[in-house]
Amino acid sequence: MKSPFQLPPDLSINSSPKRALSIMRRIWGGRGVFTCTIGNTLTSTIPGVSDAGDTPELTLFTPAADVELLFHGRTLCMDGLPINPGGIPTPATLTMAALGLSGMAVHVLNGGTKVKPHVPFYDMGGECGQDIRNGRALNNVRQSYEKGVMLGEMFSRDHDFLIASESCAGGTTTALAVMMAMGVLKENLVSSSSPKNPRELKSKIVSEALQAAGIELGGMSDRPLQAMECVGDPTMPANVGLVVGAARKIPVILGGGTQMCAILAGALAMDKGIEENLLLGTTRWMVNDPNSDICRIVEGIADIPIVSVNMDYGQSPYEGLQAYEWGYIKDGVGCGGSSVASILSTCGHIGCQQLLDRVHQEYRRMLNL
Amino acid sequence: MKSPFQLPPDLSINSSPKRALSIMRRIWGGRGVFTCTIGNTLTSTIPGVSDAGDTPELTLFTPAADVELLFHGRTLCMDGLPINPGGIPTPATLTMAALGLSGMAVHVLNGGTKVKPHVPFYDMGGECGQDIRNGRALNNVRQSYEKGVMLGEMFSRDHDFLIASESCAGGTTTALAVMMAMGVLKENLVSSSSPKNPRELKSKIVSEALQAAGIELGGMSDRPLQAMECVGDPTMPANVGLVVGAARKIPVILGGGTQMCAILAGALAMDKGIEENLLLGTTRWMVNDPNSDICRIVEGIADIPIVSVNMDYGQSPYEGLQAYEWGYIKDGVGCGGSSVASILSTCGHIGCQQLLDRVHQEYRRMLNL
Repeated sequence: MKSPFQLPPDLSINSSPKRALSIMRRIWGGRGVFTCTIGNTLTSTIPGVSDAGDTPELTLFTPAADVELLFHGRTLCMDGLPINPGGIPTPATLTMAALGLSGMAVHVLNGGTKVKPHVPFYDMGGECGQDIRNGRALNNVRQSYEKGVMLGEMFSRDHDFLIASESCAGGTTTALAVMMAMGVLKENLVSSSSPKNPRELKSKIVSEALQAAGIELGGMSDRPLQAMECVGDPTMPANVGLVVGAARKIPVILGGGTQMCAILAGALAMDKGIEENLLLGTTRWMVNDPNSDICRIVEGIADIPIVSVNMDYGQSPYEGLQAYEWGYIKDGVGCGGSSVASILSTCGHIGCQQLLDRVHQEYRRMLNL
Repeated sequence: MKSPFQLPPDLSINSSPKRALSIMRRIWGGRGVFTCTIGNTLTSTIPGVSDAGDTPELTLFTPAADVELLFHGRTLCMDGLPINPGGIPTPATLTMAALGLSGMAVHVLNGGTKVKPHVPFYDMGGECGQDIRNGRALNNVRQSYEKGVMLGEMFSRDHDFLIASESCAGGTTTALAVMMAMGVLKENLVSSSSPKNPRELKSKIVSEALQAAGIELGGMSDRPLQAMECVGDPTMPANVGLVVGAARKIPVILGGGTQMCAILAGALAMDKGIEENLLLGTTRWMVNDPNSDICRIVEGIADIPIVSVNMDYGQSPYEGLQAYEWGYIKDGVGCGGSSVASILSTCGHIGCQQLLDRVHQEYRRMLNL
C-alpha cells in the first residue's frame, strides 16, 4: 500500500504548481525508468565553450564515462572520474545515488558519439555532431527521432513514468542555437557548468551557426528537427522522440537544466498534445543560478512545471562537492530529475539526507578516500 | 488481485514438471519483458542450409524484417513478409499476436547484422558472422556477452520475468556446431524450419567448421564463448549474457526451439547457479517434430523444464498457416515463448483461441485478405 500523496519537503515547485502537483501525484509510488541520451558534438572542443571535461579533448569522453559510472560505478573508457577543470566531479555522482537508492533501471540511448561507452546502449542511428558553426551539424535526424518515438512508446507499456536526460558536453550552446532558431528564446539565458558562464563566446558561436545555416531568429519555429539538423547536437532528435513517444501515455520528467529546455521546445513542437504529461525536474543549484534563468526560458515555451530537489553540498567535507554551491555544474546526467523521481517513486522514503549520504559513500569509494 | 495458479489447459509440460510448476507459479500474473536478439551469419547463405527466407540471400533480411513486424506490424527493410519458400509466413506472426494481446514490451538486441532493422535496437558490439566453415566466425564475443549480462541485470530490476529469443537464419546449424564443440550434443538432433530437415548438409558443414577451428567433439565443454567465437552466430554471446544477467534474479523463459538450446548450454556453462530460474518455452510443433528431438537435447544439458503452447493451425482457413501442421517453421522469433508468457502473465486470460484469432486478424491485415 502506498501512502497518500503529500509534497515532500525536499522538493520545491518553481512554476505551474497545479500541473506540478497533478503530475507528481501520478508519479507517486510508481515504477519509473531512467534514460540517459548521450552524444558528442565537436562544438564542445572549441576552447572555452565547455567545462564538462578537464580539457577540450576530454569533453568528448565525458558522456561515455558518465553512463559507465551509472552501470559500473567506475569509468572504463578513461581513467578516473569525468571532472570539470579544478577537479569538480560529474553530476553523475548524484544520479548514481538516486538510482542506487531507488533501484530504478537505467537505459542508455546513443544519439551519436565519437567515444562509445562499455555499456549496452540503444543505437539511435545518429553520429557525432559537427561544429555547429558549419550550419550542418547532424545526419539522420528523422531516423533518430522516429526511433526515439518507438522507444518511448515501448517504455510507456510497462512503466508508470519515464525520466529523459542527457550527457553531452557543449550542449547548452547547441540548446541556445536550437531555441533561437525556433524562436522560443530571444536572448542568451542558458546555463553553463562553470560559474563563469562564457556567454559572449556562446552567443558568438550561435550567431555564426545560425548565419552559416541561413536561419533567422525564430525562422524554424515549427521545424525543430530541421533546426537540430543545422545547429543542434545528436542527443536532441533521439531525446525529443523519446519524450514524445512516452508522454503520449505516461508522465515524463525532463531531467536537466537549460539543455533539456531545447528538448522540451522540440517535443512540444512535434506534438502539442503531450503538454500535460511533462515536468522539468532539476536542482536547486540550477534554479538559483544567477547567470542563467531556466524559469524564464520555460515560460517562453509553455506552461510546464519546474520541480527542483533541494540538494545542498554546503556542509560536505569534500571540496569537489562544495564547489556545486559556488556555481559549478548545477545539473546534468539527469541528476536533478533522477533525484526528484527517487523521492516521488518511493513516496518520500528517500530524501536529500539519504541522497547526500549515498553521494558521499560513492565519492569516497571512487576516489579511494 | 491475481487468481491462484493453475496449469492452463493450453500449456503442456514436457520435462521436469516440478521445476516447471515452480517457475510458472512465479511468472503467474507477473510483468514480463520480451527480448529478441537478432543476428546474421553468412552460413545461412550456403544454398540448402536455411529456409528462413525465400532465397539464400533473403535469409539475411529475415531477422530485421521480423523485428520490424513486432514494432510496426509491417516490414520496412524489404517488401512483404519474411516467408519460407512456398509462402509460409514467419513465426513472428504468432509473436505479434502474443505481444499484442498481453501488452508486453519488446526490446531488440542486435548481436551483429548485415541488414539493420528500422526499429530502435541495443548495439551489443558484434558484427555479422562469417561462414562457420572458416572456423573463425565471430568478433567481440566477450564484449557482447558482458553487455548482455549488464542488460539482463537491468531488465531484472523492474520486471518479474524475461523472455529471451532469437531471429537468425542458419541458427540451427550454428547451434549444432556450438553444442558439439561443447559436447552437450553428440549427434545431429537439431530442428529445421523445413519439414525436410537437411541433416546431412548441416552435419557436413559442422564437421568442416569444427575441423577448421581445430575443435574436437566436446573440446570446449567449459569454454562456450570460445566455441561461439569459432563456430557460432552473433546472436549467441549477447543472448547468453542476457540470460545469465537476468536469471541471477528472475525467471527467464528461453523462447525457441533447438536453436535456444545452445543458449541454454552456454548460459549454464557460464553460471551454473541460474539453473532453477530457466524454462524453455516452445510450441507443440517443435516438441512433436519427428525430425528433431528437443527433449533429448535438453536432457543432455541439464534438468530444465520444457513448456509448450498447444497452438494448432489445422483448422486455419489459410494454407500458409496450415503448413505449420505439415512440419514447416515450428518455432522462431520467440513465438512459443511469448505465447507461453502471455498465457501465464495474464493468469490464463489469454489462451490458444485468442492467439489464433489474433494471428488470423494480423495475417489478413498484412496480406490484404
